[in-house]
Amino acid sequence: MTSIITLLTDFGGAGVAVSEMKAIILGLAPDAQMVDISHTIEPQNIRDGARILSRSPFYFPDGTVHIFVVDPGVGTARRPMAARLGAHTFVGPDNGTLTLAMRRAAEEGWPMEFFHLDQPRYWRPKISNIFHGRDIFAPVATHLALGVPIESVGTHITDPVTLPLPTVQRGDQAVRGEVAVVVKHFGNLITNIQARDLADLGEVSVRVRDVQINGLVRTFGDRPAGELVALIGSDDELVIAEVNGHAGNRLGAQVGDGVEVVQRG
Amino acid sequence: MTSIITLLTDFGGAGVAVSEMKAIILGLAPDAQMVDISHTIEPQNIRDGARILSRSPFYFPDGTVHIFVVDPGVGTARRPMAARLGAHTFVGPDNGTLTLAMRRAAEEGWPMEFFHLDQPRYWRPKISNIFHGRDIFAPVATHLALGVPIESVGTHITDPVTLPLPTVQRGDQAVRGEVAVVVKHFGNLITNIQARDLADLGEVSVRVRDVQINGLVRTFGDRPAGELVALIGSDDELVIAEVNGHAGNRLGAQVGDGVEVVQRG
Amino acid sequence: MTSIITLLTDFGGAGVAVSEMKAIILGLAPDAQMVDISHTIEPQNIRDGARILSRSPFYFPDGTVHIFVVDPGVGTARRPMAARLGAHTFVGPDNGTLTLAMRRAAEEGWPMEFFHLDQPRYWRPKISNIFHGRDIFAPVATHLALGVPIESVGTHITDPVTLPLPTVQRGDQAVRGEVAVVVKHFGNLITNIQARDLADLGEVSVRVRDVQINGLVRTFGDRPAGELVALIGSDDELVIAEVNGHAGNRLGAQVGDGVEVVQRG
Repeated sequence: MTSIITLLTDFGGAGVAVSEMKAIILGLAPDAQMVDISHTIEPQNIRDGARILSRSPFYFPDGTVHIFVVDPGVGTARRPMAARLGAHTFVGPDNGTLTLAMRRAAEEGWPMEFFHLDQPRYWRPKISNIFHGRDIFAPVATHLALGVPIESVGTHITDPVTLPLPTVQRGDQAVRGEVAVVVKHFGNLITNIQARDLADLGEVSVRVRDVQINGLVRTFGDRPAGELVALIGSDDELVIAEVNGHAGNRLGAQVGDGVEVVQRG
Repeated sequence: MTSIITLLTDFGGAGVAVSEMKAIILGLAPDAQMVDISHTIEPQNIRDGARILSRSPFYFPDGTVHIFVVDPGVGTARRPMAARLGAHTFVGPDNGTLTLAMRRAAEEGWPMEFFHLDQPRYWRPKISNIFHGRDIFAPVATHLALGVPIESVGTHITDPVTLPLPTVQRGDQAVRGEVAVVVKHFGNLITNIQARDLADLGEVSVRVRDVQINGLVRTFGDRPAGELVALIGSDDELVIAEVNGHAGNRLGAQVGDGVEVVQRG
Repeated sequence: MTSIITLLTDFGGAGVAVSEMKAIILGLAPDAQMVDISHTIEPQNIRDGARILSRSPFYFPDGTVHIFVVDPGVGTARRPMAARLGAHTFVGPDNGTLTLAMRRAAEEGWPMEFFHLDQPRYWRPKISNIFHGRDIFAPVATHLALGVPIESVGTHITDPVTLPLPTVQRGDQAVRGEVAVVVKHFGNLITNIQARDLADLGEVSVRVRDVQINGLVRTFGDRPAGELVALIGSDDELVIAEVNGHAGNRLGAQVGDGVEVVQRG
């Protein structure tokens, strides 16, 4: 059975380019099970792609192949890449989009391997200089999903590109991170601070944009509509939200805004 | 063969949260046939979810399992629920989103059964307080799609939550309802008035927002571009539209605006 | 095995109407492999549908069945149609949306056949006057995907509707075309000029909206961020872009704006 194939791109919602990638996948594996992770990443926002790649792919079954295409350097010297992080395989540009997934793999102790895709016999015969997603990544991912060994599609490398993405500062009485994403639809602020970063702090207050929120709630419904709350989100990350409202608009919050979690005296 | 599974949420278009639900489904049923009904319901608009759940699911084959997640009370005392309405199964929060589907089932004479999901062995091992869609509803729906009896996943209940959603007033010479949704892309006004509500009126005029439209047309192309028309829509509901235009913008119409259909003298 | 079925509509992103079409498909072919090409065409923009239909469907495997629904004349005298262009089958309204795909088939030398869908036994029993996508096109396409001969679903016709869509003027020293689409997410201007139209010109300059761009680049990364570039796109068409920017906003470009490619002296 063909492995599941997921797709993450910045092509915009339901665009025709995604369908062309699926067309190539189905030409090789007509029964492929394909799932869209997201196509509405801000154009060329590698950082947001990195955040998503570090979480959502790992909910899929072992063996899943994940295609990612946030690729401002398409057609330049940047390498096309396949990577294995634990039981998951990733195919896309070697431009740092995997940085946070690699950090997570290191923390979890998962083995990692990286390959430079340099075997055109697994590509489409003709390559567009601006659409490697369709012409290189989709066919390589499908061959991998069909069982071709990862060693066959490229050459082993040990120097994948990583980006200096922000880390969390953990102190004895405070943890400092930042807003990683403002969710458009609901307005929640997802931070780069994980639940485990807060494990030793006990009772806390959360500060963002000159506002202080006392304590963490279990869920939105614990407070009345309109109240700002902080809580642990569905991926174990600190989230700031307005109950039944839009915290992003209310606070004028932006990606990169500092977030501080301090022990309550 | 695994039953078809559909997904209806208010998570926004092609968001990563939907992909995490699909990841859990595929972990249990790798060959599952999954269909998105919609993910662009206005956040926490249970009423709009209710309208959609009363129509679209029933076009699917008998046996389909429908997951719905418009869930402002996630993580609070509101019960997770499975329901059987005729030949269709629904899984989601017990918060009234099924109100209109239950009304329809009553009108159609379909049997109904409801179950409080209280059997964690059918859930993910760890539950996020804010994402029951992924951690409870997706796995329960998949077990049901794989053939687990609905009696096994929960306890029979007879008091599902229903909401006092607007009804249609039928008189001898007039029927009063309201605008149920303004379709974003086309601007059509979909009302809560059904074709059968109008069966005894004969020739009619339709009034909305101080405008009167005389008669119903068969289809948009029966009138020139720019004209306001009323017609029976694809789900047998009364629709008000501007031919090749956007009735919502033209009339400044909102959900809840009164709509009156009167017999022509 | 059931053939792949694709869907192209102007219904808006992830709308419930698309799910109702898929419901009908799955009622006939529960294991159907369905792919969305796009649902975010501007409402009733047949011309944009025509452009997409001339390119994306042909990346799919031979035998794929493509449903298209940009259908302002639904329910009027316009005919429902099935067409075979080379190894691909199309099902939708006979309103000119296939014009550019037919032009391409003529250039490529692919055989073409057209059929008026007049066999209601392949339709849903009850037809909505405003939703032939669900009630005629979806079931007919599924029957074709299951192997019903195209001759069975309709009557052979030789006069499909075509539209006078703009053509490219090729001269000895210049080629004139126009902007065919402004891509929303990235802002690139996709023109109706194909790479082969430029084959005899040698070195060129590209003029659009009073701006002149000298030479074609291979890919975006060949120039610094903010620079306007012209290049051959992923479907072999001339594209004008701003590196890491939005050419559409910068130039105030619109569909239909003239684009001139001239030989450099």
